[in-house]
Amino acid sequence: MAGERKEPHFSRRDVLRGALAGAVSSLHYRSVSAQTEPWRIPGHVARPYGSRSKFESAVRYVVGARYPVPWASYSPIEAFYGAVTPSSLHFERHHNGVPDIAPDSHRLLVGGLVDRPRIFTLDDLKRFPSVSRMHFIECAGNSTDCIGGLKPDATAGQLHGLSCSSEWTGVLLSTLMREVGVRTTATWMIAEGADAALLDRSIPIEKCWDDILVAYGQNGEAVRPEQGYPIRLVVAGWEGNINIKWLRRLEFLDRPAMTREETVKYVDPMPDGTVRQFSFVMEAKSLITFPSGMQRLPDRGFYEIQGIAWSGRGRISRVEVSTDAGRTWQLAELQGPVLPKTHTRFRFPWVWNGQETVIQSRATDETGYRQPPRAVLLKVRRQEVTGMSQHFNGIQSWHIGADGQVRNTYA
Amino acid sequence: MAGERKEPHFSRRDVLRGALAGAVSSLHYRSVSAQTEPWRIPGHVARPYGSRSKFESAVRYVVGARYPVPWASYSPIEAFYGAVTPSSLHFERHHNGVPDIAPDSHRLLVGGLVDRPRIFTLDDLKRFPSVSRMHFIECAGNSTDCIGGLKPDATAGQLHGLSCSSEWTGVLLSTLMREVGVRTTATWMIAEGADAALLDRSIPIEKCWDDILVAYGQNGEAVRPEQGYPIRLVVAGWEGNINIKWLRRLEFLDRPAMTREETVKYVDPMPDGTVRQFSFVMEAKSLITFPSGMQRLPDRGFYEIQGIAWSGRGRISRVEVSTDAGRTWQLAELQGPVLPKTHTRFRFPWVWNGQETVIQSRATDETGYRQPPRAVLLKVRRQEVTGMSQHFNGIQSWHIGADGQVRNTYA
Repeated sequence: MAGERKEPHFSRRDVLRGALAGAVSSLHYRSVSAQTEPWRIPGHVARPYGSRSKFESAVRYVVGARYPVPWASYSPIEAFYGAVTPSSLHFERHHNGVPDIAPDSHRLLVGGLVDRPRIFTLDDLKRFPSVSRMHFIECAGNSTDCIGGLKPDATAGQLHGLSCSSEWTGVLLSTLMREVGVRTTATWMIAEGADAALLDRSIPIEKCWDDILVAYGQNGEAVRPEQGYPIRLVVAGWEGNINIKWLRRLEFLDRPAMTREETVKYVDPMPDGTVRQFSFVMEAKSLITFPSGMQRLPDRGFYEIQGIAWSGRGRISRVEVSTDAGRTWQLAELQGPVLPKTHTRFRFPWVWNGQETVIQSRATDETGYRQPPRAVLLKVRRQEVTGMSQHFNGIQSWHIGADGQVRNTYA
Repeated sequence: MAGERKEPHFSRRDVLRGALAGAVSSLHYRSVSAQTEPWRIPGHVARPYGSRSKFESAVRYVVGARYPVPWASYSPIEAFYGAVTPSSLHFERHHNGVPDIAPDSHRLLVGGLVDRPRIFTLDDLKRFPSVSRMHFIECAGNSTDCIGGLKPDATAGQLHGLSCSSEWTGVLLSTLMREVGVRTTATWMIAEGADAALLDRSIPIEKCWDDILVAYGQNGEAVRPEQGYPIRLVVAGWEGNINIKWLRRLEFLDRPAMTREETVKYVDPMPDGTVRQFSFVMEAKSLITFPSGMQRLPDRGFYEIQGIAWSGRGRISRVEVSTDAGRTWQLAELQGPVLPKTHTRFRFPWVWNGQETVIQSRATDETGYRQPPRAVLLKVRRQEVTGMSQHFNGIQSWHIGADGQVRNTYA
């Protein structure tokens, strides 16, 4: 109360500082006061385009030691609220940098086994009927650091920050397919990006007719440069790599194109020595984002455990939380509306008794599939043997020490 | 195709420019090529915090001639996609500028007719159970320029840009009320902001127990400075002014506080000479954002008419579109999920025959209330006589000329 109501204290230093500030701007005569007693001085004027508070510091974890330039950034998912990922903090993954495309000169070529090949401008695409849908995009390599040696001091974002959800707006691919007259002989489509990697992937025709978007909108604005400006494919529920960014070409084929990204990369070695291609779907997954790695509970008492869950096969039907290392599980509350193939936030009330423990979450989707324990998943896939480094969706365990410190653990 | 595949043309000027750029950065050796042939050179590296493409130019319409500093900005709603308003383009309305509050020193005092008055830090508030909800916030003075003389050359945002929808995250006010033990004698609550206007408003206790949020999250990030950082009230469906930003005090009372903002301002003169206080709810409203003011249809043919609809009383149940100045109406498609008290996007397929016409939309909400024609609303309220300048929700009409030019009109 004292802090709320106290009279201002003017030291000699404050007065000098005030005089100096006054010479710069008559509106901001004492900068310290502006932050702690904002009601004493007028604030900023209206601005054409806003930005977050200078006191906010959450940033993406930029990685990429193996390449000449940083090639990815993980989202600080532990800092997010709700279900929408802020566009400025959406994870990045690119294979030769983020291009800076002028939208007026950008074109989308649609050809191959079609009756009427077309080159579309951005204006052409926006003139078609549009849809908006919330969808997650998750890199196939997300959570890969959970397969091998334990990294106890990792945050939730450093481990699992390659999954984000946005409201995507665009034209359904099926609309464009009708426009160009895709032939019945077409069984696959290749999609190619305009970045310096010219990244390309093959997609089965059934998925093309189903729910793929050619998206130009992300969370109300144009798609961000790192997410594919001016247009990208949003292949709902499928691995991020196939959600081709900076989209420039769609070609319909009678077989997969067998590109580098689906033969040498983004394939999964199997325990029997073979290699699995086309592991498209991202299976049901969840993790607790609060409390999570490198956070600290200040004292015993009430906390709301929170996290996110998603499935490439549809809606999340339930999330269970364990606060005793998996011995017992209880239902968490899901934030509604629960939509298919997008992040669903879950919340679970918990009273921490101050003792060391391990907390976990596990998601079940509407197909009945339940996220597996890490050890079970690794045993089936033998990932440590095969070197399979993708599509890890095992249960995440957080160890909470008696001092409240939260660390990554393998339970 | 030529544009897609052509070999680079190196003019002497390009080479010189390239050499100059090379001196600055070895990664960007020809800036023209980067924009039109992005696949020829590596792109940008990953960044900690992203921003929109430099080719995107939508900004808020900053207004405020009547005050020493710009006191408001209207959102360019005609540039948005989907249902989520991008936070950087959310409208602003402030009464003495936007404060720059340091969150660590910010406090929320909750007192008055309560058993256990408390001062909460931001960390205290975040420790309570949280909820996330999509809600619109609309200034009571939105669309006021539609009451008087016609402004034919206004955009949708210049007329109606004081309404935006975000995913708000925070603690329910009712949770805090139970925490402090609000007494049964309390019938109203006053909420006060920490800005230099110390803006304060009274809210009936029934609404306080219902669905008000003390919000610290907006679209996944912290609430933006212009929207009340670090905390604001989100009073679902009620006029913007009462959604107190930069919230510092909640006090429970046995009567309304009769502040300046609910006696001199934000009251509505009635035709019988009295003045109506506490016009809280924003009634059902809609408008077409494409095609809308100052846009131009390039030619006859297919267009998807789009717009937004919302109601402070709940869900939008239907939106009808007329393309013949109100003579006939047809159902538009609503973007799902349709949620209460938030923007709902509607879409309507239309073939323009190239002739002059007027297009309109009208919304009906789940209470059965239907948005009235402008003339009917003005006749009932006699706003031009009384000077009532707020809560205008009449039907918006756009005139389309034979040349495709779209203008604001009174139909």
